[in-house]
Amino acid sequence: MTDISPKLTRLAHSLPSTVPFVGPETQERQRGRPFRARLGANESSIGPSPKVVAAMAEAAPDMWKYCDPESYDLKQALSVHLDVPAANVAIGEGIDGLLGLAVRLYVEEGQPVVTSLGAYPTFNFHIAGFGGRVVAVPYRDDREDLDGLLAAAREQNPPIVYLSNPDNPMGSWWEADDLERFAAALPPTTMFVLDEAYGEFAPASAIPPLDPSRKNVLRMRTFSKAYGLAGMRCGYAIGHEDTIAAFEKVRNHYGMSLMTQIAAQAALADQAYLAETCAKVARAREEIGRIGRENGLAPLPSATNFVALDAGDGAFALKLMNALLERDVFVRKPMAPGLDRCIRVSAGPDDELAIFAAELPGALAQARGN
Amino acid sequence: MTDISPKLTRLAHSLPSTVPFVGPETQERQRGRPFRARLGANESSIGPSPKVVAAMAEAAPDMWKYCDPESYDLKQALSVHLDVPAANVAIGEGIDGLLGLAVRLYVEEGQPVVTSLGAYPTFNFHIAGFGGRVVAVPYRDDREDLDGLLAAAREQNPPIVYLSNPDNPMGSWWEADDLERFAAALPPTTMFVLDEAYGEFAPASAIPPLDPSRKNVLRMRTFSKAYGLAGMRCGYAIGHEDTIAAFEKVRNHYGMSLMTQIAAQAALADQAYLAETCAKVARAREEIGRIGRENGLAPLPSATNFVALDAGDGAFALKLMNALLERDVFVRKPMAPGLDRCIRVSAGPDDELAIFAAELPGALAQARGN
Repeated sequence: MTDISPKLTRLAHSLPSTVPFVGPETQERQRGRPFRARLGANESSIGPSPKVVAAMAEAAPDMWKYCDPESYDLKQALSVHLDVPAANVAIGEGIDGLLGLAVRLYVEEGQPVVTSLGAYPTFNFHIAGFGGRVVAVPYRDDREDLDGLLAAAREQNPPIVYLSNPDNPMGSWWEADDLERFAAALPPTTMFVLDEAYGEFAPASAIPPLDPSRKNVLRMRTFSKAYGLAGMRCGYAIGHEDTIAAFEKVRNHYGMSLMTQIAAQAALADQAYLAETCAKVARAREEIGRIGRENGLAPLPSATNFVALDAGDGAFALKLMNALLERDVFVRKPMAPGLDRCIRVSAGPDDELAIFAAELPGALAQARGN
Repeated sequence: MTDISPKLTRLAHSLPSTVPFVGPETQERQRGRPFRARLGANESSIGPSPKVVAAMAEAAPDMWKYCDPESYDLKQALSVHLDVPAANVAIGEGIDGLLGLAVRLYVEEGQPVVTSLGAYPTFNFHIAGFGGRVVAVPYRDDREDLDGLLAAAREQNPPIVYLSNPDNPMGSWWEADDLERFAAALPPTTMFVLDEAYGEFAPASAIPPLDPSRKNVLRMRTFSKAYGLAGMRCGYAIGHEDTIAAFEKVRNHYGMSLMTQIAAQAALADQAYLAETCAKVARAREEIGRIGRENGLAPLPSATNFVALDAGDGAFALKLMNALLERDVFVRKPMAPGLDRCIRVSAGPDDELAIFAAELPGALAQARGN
């Protein structure tokens, strides 16, 4: 009998079947009960603007229509908001989707791609997925190491160097001037992918002015964080018009749901709500810091919607995270050496931070006792 | 001065910047006014179930949460509905997204992929996008040519052969027995991708039983057509568990919005509404046929939510489509030789079909006069 079995490509065959990020729902199913505090995914549990909720409810009956594959209205709104031409904006299924397309467009099999050790795992997933090779530069002083990344880029001449600012998982950031110097010193054929998912929470001085005439910078932003729409999957990229045009060659043109386009547009229109959210997040960061200090865990400075709390060393931080999970408090932690001494707590609502505050002493005692 | 310019990969550089499908919104923007009848995209303008609309409105405030990357609840519901294990089901951003992943998983650069001439252009877009080579077999008697596709597959030994059943753009179909013989006669390493986007509208005899133990068959279905959720972008694939597991290696794990998962699950739960929709579509097909015949355009038999009306020859059909577009009636037409004699009219609501009926005589006169 013939073996009937289509063959995966050589590259696909070589890839692991691992998942870049296990979601809290999976953990809940494994545990058999829900979390009481959802503080691990850096979501904006303040929620989207009531105007966004209303726009989604109103649009629901229209969902028999295909989405506009050009996301025209949303692009126009972003163009006005950002003060860049619409031709410099690409829309995608979260920054995740856009990162995948960027890697597909620029990374040939076997090429090195420079990122930080402990930075966004989904970016690494995409590099592997298109046959690239991850060159990971360790953090220095809890920040992505600009000098180290630059040295690696000059040595490796990679098609892409990736940096998030403010960064995840530490919440640290660089000033715009530092990033400008970094970009100017990169090899001329290296694309600087600057992930600004947390940009709305950061000091204005950390965000370089947009200059889409530059061919070697690609900025990425999202509605998942400050706009409170993680569930709708909408990211956008700002870059040179040739770069943005290249996305047309490979993207899933009907990949952005119509509801997502409508929700994102409504969110963008409510800048007052965004400002309120950012103010609430700043207060929640203070509260997480206060809770941490009260329990002997120093908070790291954060320009994001989460705070890394220093638990001293990686083994203890892991025990602490697990003890919190057992107490139905969903948090995550960095795993890279040096960063792994922290747990990472999202700027959740008051009632969930209160649960965290109530459970932390017991979790610490358990972690110490183990 | 150094030329600062990151380079696209050789493959990406070689791809055209064309868009596989221009949407009606783009046409409306170019025309400067909306269509009065939207009968060109095979959408279900009957709309989604009121229960789906209610579920979406209720879920809107929760959209700050990331989607479950496993689409666990939706997969469980599909598993029950289809009576196959959840491990045999993959979820994706429409069949479009799943086709792209299937090509990425199975097609090496330079390999031939067999499809029909005039079949789904987005599939061809994906083949080109991953460096494959389209081998297109002409239709025969307004159906995809099973013998011709089989001969091409035996000659080319392609990693994938693609067939839609019922087919788009002609609305024709094969019986399940014919498809079974076709699948059994394919080369052992060829994956048979069977696109059943229109399956819910077809006679039961046209749908082969699901047998996910077969390694060389991958069925694709969608919530875009009969379930009335084109705007939400949700397709699913049913295949061998090894095939489904391979999707995990390359998919955008957080690509399916939470709202889409909720909408699809609610749609699946309302099978009574689905049956009503299919009955309404059958009546609308009859009405399109009646309007066509009254105007001398023979309707082709259809197992889908659209009807191809025979306008005699390609040049005249093109004039007729353009005359209808001028009259604010959005229809499309096949472009492949032989098929291009038809215009394609979606099974829209009564009021829009009435507009089509009112405008068709004038459009025909204009087309004849040109």
